[in-house]
Amino acid sequence: MPEIHAHRRDALRTLLHETGVDALLVTDLRNIRYLTGFTGSNAALLLHAGGEAKTVFCTDGRYTTQSESEVPDLERVLDRASARALASRAAGQRASYGRTGFESQHVSVEEHETLTVRFEDVQLIRTPGLVEQLRVVKDEVEVEALRAACAAADRALADLLAAGGVRAGRTELEVARELDSRMLDHGSSEPSFATIVAAGPNSAIPHHRPTGAQLRAGDFVKFDFGATVDGYHSDMTRTFVLGEPAEWQRELYGLVHRAQAAGTDAVTPGAEVSEVDAAARSVITAAGHGDDFAHGLGHGVGLEVHEAPSLAATGAGTLSAGMAVTVEPGVYLAGRGGVRIEDTLVVRDSGPELLTLSTKDLVAV
Amino acid sequence: MPEIHAHRRDALRTLLHETGVDALLVTDLRNIRYLTGFTGSNAALLLHAGGEAKTVFCTDGRYTTQSESEVPDLERVLDRASARALASRAAGQRASYGRTGFESQHVSVEEHETLTVRFEDVQLIRTPGLVEQLRVVKDEVEVEALRAACAAADRALADLLAAGGVRAGRTELEVARELDSRMLDHGSSEPSFATIVAAGPNSAIPHHRPTGAQLRAGDFVKFDFGATVDGYHSDMTRTFVLGEPAEWQRELYGLVHRAQAAGTDAVTPGAEVSEVDAAARSVITAAGHGDDFAHGLGHGVGLEVHEAPSLAATGAGTLSAGMAVTVEPGVYLAGRGGVRIEDTLVVRDSGPELLTLSTKDLVAV
Repeated sequence: MPEIHAHRRDALRTLLHETGVDALLVTDLRNIRYLTGFTGSNAALLLHAGGEAKTVFCTDGRYTTQSESEVPDLERVLDRASARALASRAAGQRASYGRTGFESQHVSVEEHETLTVRFEDVQLIRTPGLVEQLRVVKDEVEVEALRAACAAADRALADLLAAGGVRAGRTELEVARELDSRMLDHGSSEPSFATIVAAGPNSAIPHHRPTGAQLRAGDFVKFDFGATVDGYHSDMTRTFVLGEPAEWQRELYGLVHRAQAAGTDAVTPGAEVSEVDAAARSVITAAGHGDDFAHGLGHGVGLEVHEAPSLAATGAGTLSAGMAVTVEPGVYLAGRGGVRIEDTLVVRDSGPELLTLSTKDLVAV
Repeated sequence: MPEIHAHRRDALRTLLHETGVDALLVTDLRNIRYLTGFTGSNAALLLHAGGEAKTVFCTDGRYTTQSESEVPDLERVLDRASARALASRAAGQRASYGRTGFESQHVSVEEHETLTVRFEDVQLIRTPGLVEQLRVVKDEVEVEALRAACAAADRALADLLAAGGVRAGRTELEVARELDSRMLDHGSSEPSFATIVAAGPNSAIPHHRPTGAQLRAGDFVKFDFGATVDGYHSDMTRTFVLGEPAEWQRELYGLVHRAQAAGTDAVTPGAEVSEVDAAARSVITAAGHGDDFAHGLGHGVGLEVHEAPSLAATGAGTLSAGMAVTVEPGVYLAGRGGVRIEDTLVVRDSGPELLTLSTKDLVAV
């Protein structure tokens, strides 16, 4: 759908005018995908504030056919050194590219030196984060991809449970592999990140990597995982109990569940991100577990699994309709076990739209 | 094995003395893994030319336990902003860190600005590629990891063939998934890159991504894939024929097979990389297919699946004993099919040591 990409490029042009640059050299591949639809591994885009006719896309000969199909609506140059080729081109039309921005949070110091030479008399301006600024609010095409990624994860988890895949005696690694495989079954191109399956005491480690440890009756079993569809990521955490939950497990789960609901309720347009964090954190702190929740409440999710905004006590800024964020409080009791519950959701005027739909009631597997 | 990491750090100190810097701020995670054994996702290392006592490692609180176990032999600081924390530390001991190098091919322009402020009066020197310079020649610990990664790939392919996994009617995607799964069975932590399975006309696309296309009798089926063990990658390509090979397929395969053997024979210490490329390419050019082999002959492989040296016509430099490289000529006939044969091998004084051991005879599946 070339229209949506053209629309995004127009939105970027508005930002370029505000920033006071004639053009932007886009080199981050996720930003290029966002602006053009190109999914290959080498490309650059010289987006001119003056319009599409002056905007040039570059990739290399491996992607001749693919780029014709994915980027039918832009002038195209084929060159292995894509950013440098576009820099030379701008140098040849200095009058149009007097001040050209570049993605200074992505371009290395060495690459910048090389580009400076290639751009000759063009003035290179540090303009970090312009495309990211657009990406923070998702359009409906993006929400649809996020929804599909979340659905793939939901279905994979449901299949895993229905097939009896979560049971005593299996290892964390075995269960993680089956979950990954089931996400592929449901249209995920790859896991969004290394799937976490953490059983028993391991569930108290926030970012545990699955091991050969066996699941045992009475364990908390924590799953944190995501699917990827059209480059967009889902991110969901669910924590189960293997067998009949003990009283301390019911209490801990209930606490995190209430905190997650409070955080979700606070997700409204205009809310300060630090206040959203506080809404969930205060529930946990009031129960005396403030020190056992040692990470932020959530983060933006899109073409990157972690992107702006950061929902954290130290975060700044407010939420806007169309942002996609996670809400993921956790309480971790070292040596015993931990609970985290995480959804991916979209900020809406009418209240948050949940994209991850697996139940958050305490499930005894 | 802390000794090997201490040994590598000592080798780096020799380079720092030659470069004329007092210390190096290492921020690339692969380089940090190479120098310390740390496998987490956030770290920095301030390696002082003066010795281990002045060398400091930094990671964040998520990795407290892991870093104690993986990096027991260095002073450790815990800070989320790892590079900035070490920069501030150097600023506080300006006399020892007067000239400090940084990895300018990895550090972004924005991060460099921030570090410059943190380093205060310390002079930051662009020193690209110092650790990479060491990494190009593998030590025996590294070769052992490469060997294990290559063995995992060999075994997965053998299992796939033995189980009848390569057959008419299956899709490229299904076969790729099974191969990935079988690599995990044999100890791979993840595929080294997105596995290529390319059948029929798709085999003529050098970097085809698997699709829902079905394998059909008479097809060339090209596999390009790798396993990861201890962070080290294997890289192997094999091309089969589904059923009885046609005469043109035998000829094409034989040509690439001879070119691959000629390239391998040229892999000796002291050989110019461009000559190694030429040794294989001349076989293909002499057969009239020079234009159908439009990529370089090979590349270094290690903690990155593509690293120095580049075995290409445009490459510069010579091979040394201990380098690990691929040799992967291919001939691609658009619309009909293509053949590529690729091994991972180690440059040795006694002749190349093959790490990928799957047969290169033409296999009719």
